[in-house]
This record gives sequence, structure tokens and C-alpha cells, in this order.
Amino acid sequence: MTQKTALTPATHTTPSARFSRSVRKGDILQVAGQVGFLPAEQCRPPTPAGPTLREQTRQTLADAEAILEEGGAGWDDVMMIRVHLTDTDHFAEMNDIYDVCFDAQYLTRPPAARCPLPAARTTVHVGLPAGLLVAIDALAVLDRARPGHRSLEESYNEVGG
Amino acid sequence: MTQKTALTPATHTTPSARFSRSVRKGDILQVAGQVGFLPAEQCRPPTPAGPTLREQTRQTLADAEAILEEGGAGWDDVMMIRVHLTDTDHFAEMNDIYDVCFDAQYLTRPPAARCPLPAARTTVHVGLPAGLLVAIDALAVLDRARPGHRSLEESYNEVGG
Amino acid sequence: MTQKTALTPATHTTPSARFSRSVRKGDILQVAGQVGFLPAEQCRPPTPAGPTLREQTRQTLADAEAILEEGGAGWDDVMMIRVHLTDTDHFAEMNDIYDVCFDAQYLTRPPAARCPLPAARTTVHVGLPAGLLVAIDALAVLDRARPGHRSLEESYNEVGG
Repeated sequence: MTQKTALTPATHTTPSARFSRSVRKGDILQVAGQVGFLPAEQCRPPTPAGPTLREQTRQTLADAEAILEEGGAGWDDVMMIRVHLTDTDHFAEMNDIYDVCFDAQYLTRPPAARCPLPAARTTVHVGLPAGLLVAIDALAVLDRARPGHRSLEESYNEVGG
Repeated sequence: MTQKTALTPATHTTPSARFSRSVRKGDILQVAGQVGFLPAEQCRPPTPAGPTLREQTRQTLADAEAILEEGGAGWDDVMMIRVHLTDTDHFAEMNDIYDVCFDAQYLTRPPAARCPLPAARTTVHVGLPAGLLVAIDALAVLDRARPGHRSLEESYNEVGG
Repeated sequence: MTQKTALTPATHTTPSARFSRSVRKGDILQVAGQVGFLPAEQCRPPTPAGPTLREQTRQTLADAEAILEEGGAGWDDVMMIRVHLTDTDHFAEMNDIYDVCFDAQYLTRPPAARCPLPAARTTVHVGLPAGLLVAIDALAVLDRARPGHRSLEESYNEVGG
């Protein structure tokens, strides 16, 4: 049986309700809407990384990446990214920040691995809680054959063996 | 071959267009946006459970749960819940209703099963058709090994056996 | 190992940022938010199919369908469609266009295949970049046993064989 597990980096703030920052089950990993809060500190309520779109977007993507890494995954495994912006004037700026973030990530790789396939994306303008300018969530499909992602026992169970 | 099937509790209203209240295929179950309509009655158009956020949210979650159960699943199988609210002032109240609903559900379980792992979530403020305050959809991943969710034949097909 | 691949019909415009029009990995196919741009032409920026909801919605659905077909899939494989409208007055009209599109598609089939199971759907009203009235994305689950969707080697890898 494939268990659902949570992926919650220790630095992330506690969710405001009964939801998980991320869950994985089988080869599906779902990252909840990240909103760019600073790393958790005792006695401080969740605090945005800064007042600007740039600060919040970069923190949001870093938080999503930390979750993916905790799940043994990375941006290459991400199928869909949903970007929610609060200001229609932020669309072009968000695209710039988004592209720089992904370009920077891939520049650290060996040349042969530098041309990844980006995830699909939908970007919409919505309302978010006060002070938040962006919320980003992501759906990833993990590699089944990658060691650690699925035990032999789990795989045998799947085929009734 | 893995067939797509619909999960449509008999009490649910007919969708306003060519969409299904929920579909399942393989181990993926997708619940469409539920909006808290009262159980269907002949000669009555779809009617919200009430004018308040509480009434609509509780009905919405109950409708999603009925769909999950018809699919042999439950909240534990849900990976992602998307909450769409129309009023930015409703965020905190929705969280309270949300938590009470899930806490109440789990209190009915044996103690050993009382600490489930909640789904990931994204909450945004959008516009909805007049009179509706909340729309909630959910993505679930079912247990493959659970009897009935996947036949032996389907599993063998997957490995080319 | 299951590779992620892009599905990008040649006529589609280049995305505005580092995202793919669609990606497939294993049996999951995710269509990014389609917004009804006319087929790409050199030296012309992405241009909506027209100023009306009808033109944009029909183009959007046609673009999504072209992607599905490039992935060896079709509407029958789609589990979830997210419709994002900018104007709350467009809901009923969109439903009419939506239904006509799907009815028309299925009328071209042999009678025995004319009653497909529509995808689940969530429809919300949001903001979109200027000039765009609708954005539609879709999540599909492909048939694993269908030839070409998954090699024997991939399947054997899954069970550790």
C-alpha cells in the first residue's frame, strides 16, 4: 500500500489551518500554495519575506524547492505550477523573476543537464490575505524507478505479486 | 485498460454544463468544484445550502466527502484541496469551519486512526456565480493495493505480463 | 525511468516565460492555461483569436485539444478542466459555448462512442492579462496499456524486475 506522507521543511511556518505544506503518495507530490513567508521563528507570526513582489516570489519559489528536495524531487519533476497574483500590473515583473530563478537554478548544473523542460503553468489574478502578493503551488510526478521513491514491496503489491 | 468512471451521489444536483461532479481513472480521483447546493429536488433549481459561509462550506465539504466515499476513498486519500472564496474577509472564518469539520470527522475514528495527514491546500479569493460564497475541489490518489480499486488484470497490463 | 516530455503543437505561440504549453510524464498529462491565441505567425506578438468570449473560448478548447492529440490522448482522458473567466456575466455564455464544443466533437464519432464521460470542472472569475477573457487548463490521465504510452522497459523498472 502506498502511504501518504508529509514533506515539511523544518524552517517553514505552521499552516493556518488543517492542511499540509506538501504531501506525497505514490509518485504524486503536491506542494500547497506557498506565499513567501520568512523562515519560522518562535513567537513571531508568519511574516512575508518583504513588501515587494520580488522578495515574495523568490521566497515562494525557494520554499517550494525546499519541499521538492525533501521529497527527493526537483523542479524537473514538476508538471504544473499555478501562480496567483493579486495585482494585474505584476504579470510582466513576475515573469522576469520567474525566469531568472529558473535560469539561475539550471546554471549550477553540468552543461548536459542545463536544458530542462519547464513545467506547464497557469497564472491568474486573485485576492489573497492582506500583505501577500503571490501564491504558488505545484504538482510533481516523481520517477518511480528512482531508488527510495518506491520500495520493491510497494511495487510488488501493485501487481498483486 | 483503466477506465474513467463518474462518481455522482444520487442526491447531488445536475451540473450546469457538460462536466462531471467527479471522475476516477486508475488511482486518480478528481472532485469537481463543489459549491454547497442543497440535495437535489425535482422542480427546484440548484439552491445553496444557505446564505452564510458556514452553511455553504459545510455542505460543500459534505458533498465532496460523499463523492470520495462513493469512490471507495476518504479524506485521507486527498492530496490537494482548492478553496475559492468570494470575500477576503471570509478567510479566517473559513479556516475555523474547515478545521472543525475535519476535527469532527476524525473524532469518530478509533484513537489509533485519529491523526491523519491533511491534504495540501491553496486558498484564493475569486468571483463565483451570484449567491455562492465558496467553491472547493479536491484531487485524491487512491490506494492501488486496496481491493476493488484496480483489478489484477489491470495491474498485469501495466507490466506487460 | 519515466521521462517528462513536452507537447507543443507547431502552430502554438511561444510561452511568455519559462513554462511549457503541456507536459507529460508517465500517465499524467498536464495542459497549461490556454488563452485562445491565434496560431503563431512570425513577427506578430501573441494575438487573441478575437474580442469575444466565443472566439477566445473556442480557440482555447481547440488548442487544448491539439495538445491532447499530440500526446496521443483526447478529451475522454481529461479528468479536470479549470475555467477562468474575467467577467461574472460570462458564466452562462461560456457554458453554452463549452457544451456546443463538446457536443460537436462527439457527434463526429460512431454512435457507440457518443456518450463520453465529461471531465470534472471548476469555474472561477479572476483577472487575466489585458484582452484575455478566458484561460482553460486541463489535467489528463492517459491509458497505460495503450501502446506507446509506456514501454515494457519502463513497466519492468516500476516493479524492480
